[in-house]
Amino acid sequence: MSFHKFADNAELIAFARQHSPVFAPAAVLTVEEISDGNINYVYRIKSDQASVIVKQALPFIRIIGEGWPLSQDRIRIEAQSLQRAAELCPAQVPQLYYYDAARCALVMEDMGDHQNLREALLAERVVPQLAAHLAHFMARTLFYSSDFYLDSHQKKALVKDFINPDLCKSTEEVFFVDPYCDHERNNIHPALQTAAAEMWQHAALKCEVAQLKMQFLCQAQALLHGDLHTGSIFVTEQSSQVIDPEFGFVGPIGFDPGVLIANYLLSYCALGQMAGVSAHYRQGLRQTIADLWNGFTAQFDQLMASDTRDASFKQASYRQYYLQQLLADTLGFAGTEVIRRTIGIAQVAEWQAIDNDAAVGVAKGQALALGQQLILQRRTLGTIEAMLELLDN
Amino acid sequence: MSFHKFADNAELIAFARQHSPVFAPAAVLTVEEISDGNINYVYRIKSDQASVIVKQALPFIRIIGEGWPLSQDRIRIEAQSLQRAAELCPAQVPQLYYYDAARCALVMEDMGDHQNLREALLAERVVPQLAAHLAHFMARTLFYSSDFYLDSHQKKALVKDFINPDLCKSTEEVFFVDPYCDHERNNIHPALQTAAAEMWQHAALKCEVAQLKMQFLCQAQALLHGDLHTGSIFVTEQSSQVIDPEFGFVGPIGFDPGVLIANYLLSYCALGQMAGVSAHYRQGLRQTIADLWNGFTAQFDQLMASDTRDASFKQASYRQYYLQQLLADTLGFAGTEVIRRTIGIAQVAEWQAIDNDAAVGVAKGQALALGQQLILQRRTLGTIEAMLELLDN
Repeated sequence: MSFHKFADNAELIAFARQHSPVFAPAAVLTVEEISDGNINYVYRIKSDQASVIVKQALPFIRIIGEGWPLSQDRIRIEAQSLQRAAELCPAQVPQLYYYDAARCALVMEDMGDHQNLREALLAERVVPQLAAHLAHFMARTLFYSSDFYLDSHQKKALVKDFINPDLCKSTEEVFFVDPYCDHERNNIHPALQTAAAEMWQHAALKCEVAQLKMQFLCQAQALLHGDLHTGSIFVTEQSSQVIDPEFGFVGPIGFDPGVLIANYLLSYCALGQMAGVSAHYRQGLRQTIADLWNGFTAQFDQLMASDTRDASFKQASYRQYYLQQLLADTLGFAGTEVIRRTIGIAQVAEWQAIDNDAAVGVAKGQALALGQQLILQRRTLGTIEAMLELLDN
Repeated sequence: MSFHKFADNAELIAFARQHSPVFAPAAVLTVEEISDGNINYVYRIKSDQASVIVKQALPFIRIIGEGWPLSQDRIRIEAQSLQRAAELCPAQVPQLYYYDAARCALVMEDMGDHQNLREALLAERVVPQLAAHLAHFMARTLFYSSDFYLDSHQKKALVKDFINPDLCKSTEEVFFVDPYCDHERNNIHPALQTAAAEMWQHAALKCEVAQLKMQFLCQAQALLHGDLHTGSIFVTEQSSQVIDPEFGFVGPIGFDPGVLIANYLLSYCALGQMAGVSAHYRQGLRQTIADLWNGFTAQFDQLMASDTRDASFKQASYRQYYLQQLLADTLGFAGTEVIRRTIGIAQVAEWQAIDNDAAVGVAKGQALALGQQLILQRRTLGTIEAMLELLDN
C-alpha cells in the first residue's frame, strides 16, 4: 500500500505554515496530535498567537491500521463539503484554508475555544443558540443541494461527485444490519439481552428498518453531512460549528436531522440516570429538539416557497406533503441511530458517564424502547411535539 | 461543433463489414437509411443473405439539427444497457456486435422479420408471447440492477456509469412539466381544451405529479430502460425484442412498467374508436396488461425471495410492502405517460390511425380522464385488475 503520511513535526509545520494565513513569518510552531475520532489523523499546529488544524486521511482506519482499508477519497469529500457549506452558512463551519489532494490532507481553522457539543450536554451546559444555528445549517445545506434548487444537470453532477461507497457501506452496516440481529460486533448490556432478542423477532419493526435502509441506499434527495451527531458539533454560547462531513453523499434528507435529534434523545436518556442532573436541564433538551425541528422545517419550507426553481415543487400542497414525509423519515432514522448507539459497535460517551451499571441498563433500556417507538410510529406521530410525548419527564 | 458522421455508404458498409460477423467476404452490400425515431441516424446494411443495423448518435437531435444539442453519451449508455440486458435476457434484445466510442456508433442484429409492437397492436395482431417475454425482461433487468441484488459499491458504480442528464431532462420536461400547464409545446385536441384547462387547476393532481417527478429525479432504484413504449419493442409470434435504451438511467422501477402499460392503455383507447375493431381484441389488450403486471411482479417477487443478498430485503412483509409501492408508482407513471402522449408534444401513432376527428376527440378525452384517474387513485386501486375496471368495455 503506497501513500503519503506526514513524516514528522517539521513536515507538518511546513505544510501548515505554507497553506494557512494565520502565522507570523517568524513564529515558532509546535505540533500536538489530537486525533480523537477513530478514522483519521488530526493535529493542532500552533504558535503563541494562533493555531490551525491539519487533518490527514490514510487509506485505512487509524485505530485499526491497514487491516481495515478505507478510501482516501473521504478527505476530498470532506473538503468539498466544507467548501459548499462555507458558501451557504459560513458561520457554521470552520474555514478551510487548503486541501491537498496528493497528501490527502487539509488545513482548517482551529476551533480551540469551542467545546464538543456532546461533552457540553453531559456537563449540563446551556447552549442557547444551538437550535437556531443548526436549523439554519441543515435547512440551507440540504435545500440548496436538493432538486428544489438545483437543476437536474447540476443535481446529477452533485450525485456523481459525492458518490462515497466506503463510508456509506459502513453506515449501512452499523445502522441497519448489526443491531437487528445477534451480530458479533454488537455490545449489548446484560439488562437489554431479552429486549434485544425480542426486537430481532419483531417482523413489523424489521420491515420498517428495511424501508429506511432502502431509502438510505437509493433516495438521492440532497447532499447530507452524513454523520451529524453531537460529537461532530463544536459550540460556544455564540457559535456552533459543524465538522467532519466525510460521510457526505447525496441521500435522504431526513437522515441528518434524524441523527442529530437521536443524539439529543440519547443525552436525554442518559442524563435521566445521572445523579444531580436537573429536570430543568432535561426539559431544555426537549425544547431544543422541538426548536431544531420546527426551525429547520420552517426555514426549509420558506426556501421551498422562495427559492425553488421548479413551480411544481412550490405548490403549498406539495410542500406540506413533503414536510410530512420528511418528519416520518427523520423519526425513522432517529430511531435507528438511537438503537445502534445503544446496542451496536459504536456507542456514545453518555453511557460511560453514568456511574452505576444498573442505571446504565435503565437508560439504555429506555433508549432501546424509544428507538423502536420512533421507527414504528414515525408515520403516525405527525409532529415533533407528539414525539416528545413519548419521553418520560 | 466537431463530430464524426459517416461520410457515405462506402464508409457505412466498411464499418458494418468489419464489425459484424454476418456477411460473407465477397458479399455485395447495400445501405438503406431507416431512421424512424427523431433523434439518431439508423441504417440497414444488407447483402442478399444477411443484414445488420448501424446506429449513430450525433451531438444533436437528428430531425432538428445543431439547434437542439444532445449528449452523444447516449449511445454509450445504449450500448452498455444492451450488453447488460443481453447477459440477463438474451432473447429479449438484439445482439450488439460492436460499439465504437469514437464514432458514437454501434452495429447490431437486424430484426427485419419483427414488427414494431405499436403497429402490430394497431393491426389487431395477436402477440401471444409478449406479456411473458416483457415480464421476464422487466423483472430481470430491473431486479439485477437494484439494491436487492447489487452490493452498495456495485450499485453506486452503476448509478455513476448511467448518469444521463440530457435524456433525463427531456423526459422531465415532456412527462412532468408541459402537460400540466398551458405550454406552447402541447398539442391539445379542440375537444379537450376544457378538460386540459381544468386539469391545470387540479391542485391534488398536480401535487401527485410533483411527487412522481421528485421520484423520477431522485429515486435511484434500478437501471431503467427509460423509454419502454410499444414503439421500442419488436415482435413476432415467437419473439419479443426491446431496443433503444438510450434513455437509461438508475431511477424508479415503476417507470418502465408504467410506460409500457400506459402504451397498451393508449392503444386500448384508440382502438375503441376505430371502426371494425373487435371487442375481443380489446379484451385481449386488457388481459395482456394484467398478464404483464402479474407476470412481472411474480418474477420480481420470486427473485427477491431467491436472489436477494440482503436478508432484510428478503422478508415476506417487506417484499409485500415493496410490491404494493411499486404498483402505486407504476400506475402513477402510467398516468403521466397516458396524459403526455395525449396532449403533449410527442403523441402516438394510434391517434392518426383513427379516421375521423370527432372520434379522435372521444378517444383522447377518455385517455386524458384515465391518466388522471391513474395518478389520483394509484395508491388505492391495489391491484391491476382494479385498475382495469376503470376502462370501458
